[in-house]
Amino acid sequence: MRLHRTPRAPNPRRVTMFIAEKGIDGIELVDVDLAAQAHRDAAFVARSPFSKVPALELPDGRVLTESRAIQTWLEGRFPEPNLMGRDADERASIEEADRQVELYLLFPLAMWVRHTHPGLAVLETPQLPDYAASQAARGREAAAILDRRLAEREWIAGERFTVADITAFCALEFARGLVRWRPADDGLVHLQAWRDRVATRPSATAL
Amino acid sequence: MRLHRTPRAPNPRRVTMFIAEKGIDGIELVDVDLAAQAHRDAAFVARSPFSKVPALELPDGRVLTESRAIQTWLEGRFPEPNLMGRDADERASIEEADRQVELYLLFPLAMWVRHTHPGLAVLETPQLPDYAASQAARGREAAAILDRRLAEREWIAGERFTVADITAFCALEFARGLVRWRPADDGLVHLQAWRDRVATRPSATAL
Repeated sequence: MRLHRTPRAPNPRRVTMFIAEKGIDGIELVDVDLAAQAHRDAAFVARSPFSKVPALELPDGRVLTESRAIQTWLEGRFPEPNLMGRDADERASIEEADRQVELYLLFPLAMWVRHTHPGLAVLETPQLPDYAASQAARGREAAAILDRRLAEREWIAGERFTVADITAFCALEFARGLVRWRPADDGLVHLQAWRDRVATRPSATAL
Repeated sequence: MRLHRTPRAPNPRRVTMFIAEKGIDGIELVDVDLAAQAHRDAAFVARSPFSKVPALELPDGRVLTESRAIQTWLEGRFPEPNLMGRDADERASIEEADRQVELYLLFPLAMWVRHTHPGLAVLETPQLPDYAASQAARGREAAAILDRRLAEREWIAGERFTVADITAFCALEFARGLVRWRPADDGLVHLQAWRDRVATRPSATAL
């Protein structure tokens, strides 16, 4: 299998970290240069109609896009360690947490980055500073809610490490790298401690 | 079970339409008045920490939020007709399609509405016209990609009606109602024909 991805971009990182947690070997990584608009090439669009990374070429030749759909497929093929739930009830509960950190933490923080960072102007046209400011505020508001949650539980979705921890970690790492914001800057000690705990996992350096 | 929702809002509608497709009886609908900021009330936030509708109270007292997580739970409890995939492979493929229409069609069209419609200023502060314009363009671009897909297949995710059709239909109905845009306005005849086909289903009027 081949995974088309862009190093350091948060969505591909969700998949490479997931692969590392599963200990899956043999997936070839193919770099897609977003700055050079490689995701707009006809050859890439034939694989990924919405021009998105990551995209996974499956053994039967199909190409699967969308980080979470790729994770669902990998979870089916490589069930252990379980990261997305063992039955529909647990799958729903983990999906809820994963969507919360995706929609209310990762997306706003990513918009903050994309609408302010000079290096990303090629991907986000026009860059809108007012929108960046509103999204920065929303992402930090969600971080504060997660901080209160992590005062009471060890992991984002409950008692064990799941895909939701991967999504939230990739969100915070993107903001840390590109707008230099960390939860501790807002006094969010529980979220910061959780982030620092996740950062010690071998998968945290799988880019 | 009780479903906290707001009539006509696109995300709750994804769940009420899903319930109608499954033919599930006995879920009580509780209206949440977003215009009156009822989703910010302490009692509601205790159920839904990110102040989001819909929220489903489960038989054991837990509250589940996030449309797609609620659908996952309902699919487990009421398996027929299957709307989200029978095994991990099909679940991944339908999730890919569902996310594509959610992230690239529903979200931009919803942002177009929320950042322009006077009646939604209370929910979206500040309303940013430049952002609305950029999101209108992106939503219409995604609609054009879907139009080409629907020239070759009957349903969004392939050969049968799935949750992805529900998500896309709720997206288009929201735009039709509030910014008066229809796929036919852009010459997207396949997407319009698909929408008109879905509109004949009994579930299409489950608000």
